[in-house]
Amino acid sequence: MAPPFPLPAPMRRALHLARQAQAAGEVPIGAVVTRDGVIIGEGENRNRRDRDPTAHAEIVALRAAATWLDDFRLTGCDLWVTLEPCPMCAGAIAHARIARLYYAAADPKGGAIEQGPRLFTQPQCLHRPDVYAGLAEAEASALLRDFFAARR
Amino acid sequence: MAPPFPLPAPMRRALHLARQAQAAGEVPIGAVVTRDGVIIGEGENRNRRDRDPTAHAEIVALRAAATWLDDFRLTGCDLWVTLEPCPMCAGAIAHARIARLYYAAADPKGGAIEQGPRLFTQPQCLHRPDVYAGLAEAEASALLRDFFAARR
Repeated sequence: MAPPFPLPAPMRRALHLARQAQAAGEVPIGAVVTRDGVIIGEGENRNRRDRDPTAHAEIVALRAAATWLDDFRLTGCDLWVTLEPCPMCAGAIAHARIARLYYAAADPKGGAIEQGPRLFTQPQCLHRPDVYAGLAEAEASALLRDFFAARR
Repeated sequence: MAPPFPLPAPMRRALHLARQAQAAGEVPIGAVVTRDGVIIGEGENRNRRDRDPTAHAEIVALRAAATWLDDFRLTGCDLWVTLEPCPMCAGAIAHARIARLYYAAADPKGGAIEQGPRLFTQPQCLHRPDVYAGLAEAEASALLRDFFAARR
């Protein structure tokens, strides 16, 4: 079934990065940072390859964008990711001052945006991006489902 | 007033790293990872120097230890940090499978262990370290208080 509107290019790129991660034996998650619609940072899950417990797609993309901007605040930038961010990544998104968060599939087991600690609704949270969920949800979910089914 | 027992060496080192961060114009927070009592990774806050929104002391120390171990899981390792970890760092600590977390000062504004989202008590949390708070609390708090007072 064709989607009701064309998938925005950054989310298409994030899905591509997720597939690349999968091909490398990593959990298939991809992320992209844009400013004014232009990609300025991207990342895919690299925990195993980089031996890095923090190397989720979002963290890799945020660090790349910050290097590109030469600033530790990504004010006015958007993050596109194929899965609902975990507490670590949600915290990083707030620290980075991301303006808009777009994510594809919800993550009932590890997500921290619309379930679990719902970090952006905590009174402590100093910065809350606008959140848009569900873009390319079916495609991102299928990637993860197939990956975990193949490992069982 | 002398403390009731000698401060463990890893926390003394974390305080030293916090002071180094302060001298470099960063928020004075330091962290150390140990395995069997030996330091295998350390970090200080480097957000500004590295232009990295994720470069909290804990993240830097966890990544260094993972590189040293050549493994993205730090099973059986301990983390020592001068301030209660934020949601980003608490999430990273869980991902890394840290066995014991020692922190000095509580952080009512940004802490995620004993306040706010209390991440390790969330049913979603897949790994909970043992937590020991309050070692060198006065010293770590004074460092932060002086730092923020000087910036006002």
